[in-house]
Amino acid sequence: MPDIQRLTTADPAFWTRLETLTAWEGVADEAVTTTVRDILAQVRTVGDVALLEYTRRFDRLNAKQAGDLEIPPIRLQQALHCIPVDQRTALETAAARIRTYAERQKQESWVFTEADGTVLGQQVTPLDRVGLYVPGGKAAYPSSVLMNAIPAKVAGVPEIVMVVPTPGGELNELVLAAAAVAGVDRVFTIGGAQAVAALAYGTATVPRVDKIVGPGNAYVAAAKRQVFGTVGIDMIAGPSEILVVCDGQTDPDWITMDLFSQAEHDEDAQPILISPDAAFLDRVATRIDALLPSMERRKIIEASLDRRAALIQTLDLNEAAQVVNFIAPEHLELSVEKPEALLPLIRHAGAIFLGRYTAEALGDYCAGPNHVLPTSRTARFSSALGVYDFQKRSSLINCSPTGAATLGRTASVLARGEGLTAHARSAEYRIAEQP
Amino acid sequence: MPDIQRLTTADPAFWTRLETLTAWEGVADEAVTTTVRDILAQVRTVGDVALLEYTRRFDRLNAKQAGDLEIPPIRLQQALHCIPVDQRTALETAAARIRTYAERQKQESWVFTEADGTVLGQQVTPLDRVGLYVPGGKAAYPSSVLMNAIPAKVAGVPEIVMVVPTPGGELNELVLAAAAVAGVDRVFTIGGAQAVAALAYGTATVPRVDKIVGPGNAYVAAAKRQVFGTVGIDMIAGPSEILVVCDGQTDPDWITMDLFSQAEHDEDAQPILISPDAAFLDRVATRIDALLPSMERRKIIEASLDRRAALIQTLDLNEAAQVVNFIAPEHLELSVEKPEALLPLIRHAGAIFLGRYTAEALGDYCAGPNHVLPTSRTARFSSALGVYDFQKRSSLINCSPTGAATLGRTASVLARGEGLTAHARSAEYRIAEQP
Repeated sequence: MPDIQRLTTADPAFWTRLETLTAWEGVADEAVTTTVRDILAQVRTVGDVALLEYTRRFDRLNAKQAGDLEIPPIRLQQALHCIPVDQRTALETAAARIRTYAERQKQESWVFTEADGTVLGQQVTPLDRVGLYVPGGKAAYPSSVLMNAIPAKVAGVPEIVMVVPTPGGELNELVLAAAAVAGVDRVFTIGGAQAVAALAYGTATVPRVDKIVGPGNAYVAAAKRQVFGTVGIDMIAGPSEILVVCDGQTDPDWITMDLFSQAEHDEDAQPILISPDAAFLDRVATRIDALLPSMERRKIIEASLDRRAALIQTLDLNEAAQVVNFIAPEHLELSVEKPEALLPLIRHAGAIFLGRYTAEALGDYCAGPNHVLPTSRTARFSSALGVYDFQKRSSLINCSPTGAATLGRTASVLARGEGLTAHARSAEYRIAEQP
Repeated sequence: MPDIQRLTTADPAFWTRLETLTAWEGVADEAVTTTVRDILAQVRTVGDVALLEYTRRFDRLNAKQAGDLEIPPIRLQQALHCIPVDQRTALETAAARIRTYAERQKQESWVFTEADGTVLGQQVTPLDRVGLYVPGGKAAYPSSVLMNAIPAKVAGVPEIVMVVPTPGGELNELVLAAAAVAGVDRVFTIGGAQAVAALAYGTATVPRVDKIVGPGNAYVAAAKRQVFGTVGIDMIAGPSEILVVCDGQTDPDWITMDLFSQAEHDEDAQPILISPDAAFLDRVATRIDALLPSMERRKIIEASLDRRAALIQTLDLNEAAQVVNFIAPEHLELSVEKPEALLPLIRHAGAIFLGRYTAEALGDYCAGPNHVLPTSRTARFSSALGVYDFQKRSSLINCSPTGAATLGRTASVLARGEGLTAHARSAEYRIAEQP
């Protein structure tokens, strides 16, 4: 049975212990960094030739020519028609809800006119082309395809290029079906750093994109980090986390399973339960032991509970909110009688699940909000993936002659204060021209 | 006289030449990276001791204790009262306009309720604490203080901590005055990688922040890159750029000075002029030679023009827009008769200055929109600094019992399709409980 840490805020060393518990250093392995640098350079230099070679070597996929690495759109439609009908319905239901929520995030252009006729504003435009990385093999999640592609489509991105490695040629039908549902435009069976390189620099076969999103292993993460600047990237995600705040009145089995649902992702995943009710923490600990043996992914869950889980006792729910704000969790469940009362105290969390019925797993698949969320305390300064991430804003300034003269005087003083006289003279020309 | 490149879209090799012209590799100097890594580790480990030592060594500033590195708020007010009144007025005018524009960007929380009582939404909150890096010495720009601090304050950030190196103890009064006007809360006279480290990790004296913004030299840029993840960062900026599209009817002296105003920033700055009118390009070339000798920063301007400038002839303004979209310029001037007609063709640009009167320099100081803008073609996927960058969004999900049952069925199918059975069971518990 797992040995889960118990913490209490009554402990004078509590905050130090909490910092240690939640610390996570994204490991920047030197060997991985170097390997990735070489792969990027090769694909950048010789394009398809390198792409074919790495795909042969790493994915045991012998394509004769780079064009063979593309899956035609018709194949995605086939997958959608061949999967069981309940899966197709579930994908389509989830997609519709994700789309509806995303529509609310769409930013529009705006302008306003000042008294002297000067117009200021912001023009919002979508990115031209987005690359979506989808891991192959075990960690191939169709839900990730929906969560990454749909906000891009809602933003108006004309072309989404998906890459998914197919080790030994094995295709995941559910992933292909999700791509069809999400409106992905092109799909290539490539993966790893070589796929990231192809998307960032382009090859004769793979078009270069403006931003790369989607999860991947250490090589993919290192490659995204290295191409950042040439293209945009979403984020480098750490292990998944759930933080449940419970008043002690929710069925302990429900809470236990919510903790397991994060733990089953990854041995480094972090499930934490906070309650002012010590007896409730005991009851959950008992139910963890009782339910664990029946879990399909028991080994992973147990490792996660051992390594990174905690049961934390606080004085009350107000203090629980303070702990939440320190942790800035990826997923926060407020499993309490009046979650709305607690909500205003929460400053940092990726997604907040309010009330006993709102299992975090609903958000992973189909509630509507995105499941791509900031991890490792980064919710202090970042947010869920959204339509925003596929739009950009160009500032607009259109000065009337009068406006240019007025602004020119201010600009001239400040520019001269900074010693930038070409700036000053450029502004002053427009003053001199006034009638 | 500078030898400025001339390009024409009629040249079959035009797009290749254009790519070469605009290519910019953010240099990741190994020596800088290693030095910075050591500095970060030292400050992280021994805090103030390292901070004092590096400040002695790099800034020739002998503070006895770390507390002496803080400038009290009263000193900022003194600076504001001591600068010439026209400078104070200019700072306050600029600040008011930047604030008014930023107010329009503020995002608000929202929720909506579905038919079954499920509530979805987004809670928008400000960051807790932001660090603002301000370079010392020659490149100390009070306008940057306004542009970085005001959007944070409009977002509702309670505390802004500014760091500014003062080599040899030399303070820049205009920078301190700008900090007073912008509402900066605390100021420390530290700089370089050690200042970034202090902000990212915190020391006994310097509080740790959630995000670091503001420009800096290669060490500061490398430090920001390395602490990214522990804290948020704004962007790693490349050299400044201006792209002017002119129909040939604007005074060539105006256009010349607009090009100079970017060139004077930096020897690597990139000023480009596009026109369908070859004779106009000739006239500007002539005026460049004529006006250059009178420029205070002539050497820098000349180097920039030699290295990175270009005069580009296109077939017409439509084709000019295509070139613009490839370059995705930081600053774009549409110095044409009907800029509004050209605007819909522009997909990528940091800021767009419409019409002959809208000198780019006005945007640098006081038009209102931010002057912190994406460079080196990154406007393809990123935007001006704004209030957005100091707010974050937490997704909200509050399922009614009926909603949880409906969503639970979809989630269960998809979770089982992904082999994540704890997710499925967590969702299913909430179905079983239905009456």
